[in-house]
Amino acid sequence: MSAGPSAVPREPSLAAIVSRTLGAGAPESLVELLPVLTSDLGEIDQRIQKVLQSNYPRLTEAAGYAVSAGGKRVRPLLMAATARALGLPSTGRIGALAAAFQLIHTATLVHDDVIDHAELRRGRPSVPRAFGLPSAIVTGDYLFVRAFELAAEYPRSIILRCGESCADLVEGEVLQDAGRFDLTSGRDHYFRVIERKTAAIVAAALASVAEIVEAPAASVAACEEYGRSLGIAFQIRDDLLDVYGDPDLLGKPRYTDLREGNPTLLSLEAHARLGGTEREEFERLFGLRRKQPSDLFRLRALTDTTDAATAVAEAAEGWAERAVRALEPLPDGPYRTLLEWLARGAAARRF
Amino acid sequence: MSAGPSAVPREPSLAAIVSRTLGAGAPESLVELLPVLTSDLGEIDQRIQKVLQSNYPRLTEAAGYAVSAGGKRVRPLLMAATARALGLPSTGRIGALAAAFQLIHTATLVHDDVIDHAELRRGRPSVPRAFGLPSAIVTGDYLFVRAFELAAEYPRSIILRCGESCADLVEGEVLQDAGRFDLTSGRDHYFRVIERKTAAIVAAALASVAEIVEAPAASVAACEEYGRSLGIAFQIRDDLLDVYGDPDLLGKPRYTDLREGNPTLLSLEAHARLGGTEREEFERLFGLRRKQPSDLFRLRALTDTTDAATAVAEAAEGWAERAVRALEPLPDGPYRTLLEWLARGAAARRF
Repeated sequence: MSAGPSAVPREPSLAAIVSRTLGAGAPESLVELLPVLTSDLGEIDQRIQKVLQSNYPRLTEAAGYAVSAGGKRVRPLLMAATARALGLPSTGRIGALAAAFQLIHTATLVHDDVIDHAELRRGRPSVPRAFGLPSAIVTGDYLFVRAFELAAEYPRSIILRCGESCADLVEGEVLQDAGRFDLTSGRDHYFRVIERKTAAIVAAALASVAEIVEAPAASVAACEEYGRSLGIAFQIRDDLLDVYGDPDLLGKPRYTDLREGNPTLLSLEAHARLGGTEREEFERLFGLRRKQPSDLFRLRALTDTTDAATAVAEAAEGWAERAVRALEPLPDGPYRTLLEWLARGAAARRF
Repeated sequence: MSAGPSAVPREPSLAAIVSRTLGAGAPESLVELLPVLTSDLGEIDQRIQKVLQSNYPRLTEAAGYAVSAGGKRVRPLLMAATARALGLPSTGRIGALAAAFQLIHTATLVHDDVIDHAELRRGRPSVPRAFGLPSAIVTGDYLFVRAFELAAEYPRSIILRCGESCADLVEGEVLQDAGRFDLTSGRDHYFRVIERKTAAIVAAALASVAEIVEAPAASVAACEEYGRSLGIAFQIRDDLLDVYGDPDLLGKPRYTDLREGNPTLLSLEAHARLGGTEREEFERLFGLRRKQPSDLFRLRALTDTTDAATAVAEAAEGWAERAVRALEPLPDGPYRTLLEWLARGAAARRF
């Protein structure tokens, strides 16, 4: 069951990750920020590595494996950019918090992979696949525990904000689980799920940064609203990629949400647009606990007969613009421009 | 999958639980403490109920279900008794911390039941059995999160002590998982597992109480050592009950450790005492990933041919006496007597 260190492929350099997350078309003014951002993420990564050391190599290994599949580093990048946009000269004061939020995010991915029976995560075997289910459950617990130890550095209000967003996240997962295989739960249910499951933690992370920097109340609220809107845009884009994304770029197979019966904005919009027997067929296939590849292809084909994909892409863009507008109280400058760029990128990303 | 509220049997009253945990033979001086202890546990229970409220009823229900199977309430009882032994006139200052440790304990039980595929816990369906595996995983996460929110009330040193003991606990689980089905791992491995998995959290809970009460350093160390020794005694007794306990009293089937291949002090002592072909047979049967009832009965019969059970009972008693001796720096009085009684009870309990 165990994957030895030799089985862990090396992750690309942080500079490559940041550059990839910024995207090929990034303006020169943002490309100039690359060295600073890479160094910020490096510091956050070091904190993570340090806190994950345990007395037991297998646990350190599994936790390190989970973290090194950290992918795009969107959350720490957003936190570093927010801190700098608010005038912080380094990530020093928010480094431990960024590490904590990244660990919480990773913990939930590990437990999600247990729940969803996911075999792959970012092109590698998932933690439950590589280390076994028992180790995956306790590795997730371990990441949570270390995250809270990091958060303990901060004032009580920050710890509570962090804790509340974790509770939201867990609520979102239970809510999602309760609505599985059921398209009639509708858009309100969908937005309740993603606000809790995806958006709340981004909102809490960025509001916490603003609070630590002692930014004015309007800026704290702006960062929270920006984080929430960006989180929603990110998740809606994720829904689209589940059906139309490139599996090689994503590092995971398509149709996971369809297979697991998670209603997405795409499946809800397609369902709402179909009529008569096609709508009934869509609902029936979506509700199947075990779907054959032909069922998934049929669901995709039915979706293609509607303009649901366009509507969903526009919805993601709409939330990204809402995130951009939320930034207005923040001082103008390259890091605010970066935050705007990242929000629009979340709604347009291909991986 | 969901168990509605009507399916949740009512728990006995707190007074009945405390009285049962104290045991029938408790001296009059301890029986007199019953009303105070019941009221202390009631306050801790109320804190737990309050913090478990979520916006989503199903999560509150699952978490409440997990907590109400809290059984003997040994940990909160120990924490209340320690606080009072150190002169605290009420549990007020340590109430949130006791609630936090009880939630952490419950979280690990829920995740353990997922890992061990346990159907029963304290005579009722386990959380994964009653609410499904996905809900069980996130319910455990939710309990962890709420525990850390409670711990956030305290100084950083307490939060870190709590966090470190959680990390120990997780390490213990990974260590245990790595040694499954393998009796050759030996006693050292066994003690490493139970010190982390069971004893560290009791030690941390009681040392934290002493620290909050601002007890002298010798008392903090005494409480830590008492908690650790009692935890070990408790776990060793648990090993014995897995084979010789009354399933009706325990609320769970016998032979769980044998079936899951967890080396216990009992199986290690039996293995060490057997010779020749019987030893080989014991090792082979213990190592089977899937055991038939006849395999389990044979393991029990082989154990019965040795005096392993007596040796294990004596080991538990030895650790209980070590716990009692550790209390010497504490002021004499009824609550210290209670702590002594609880330590000896942990090594002699039948449930």
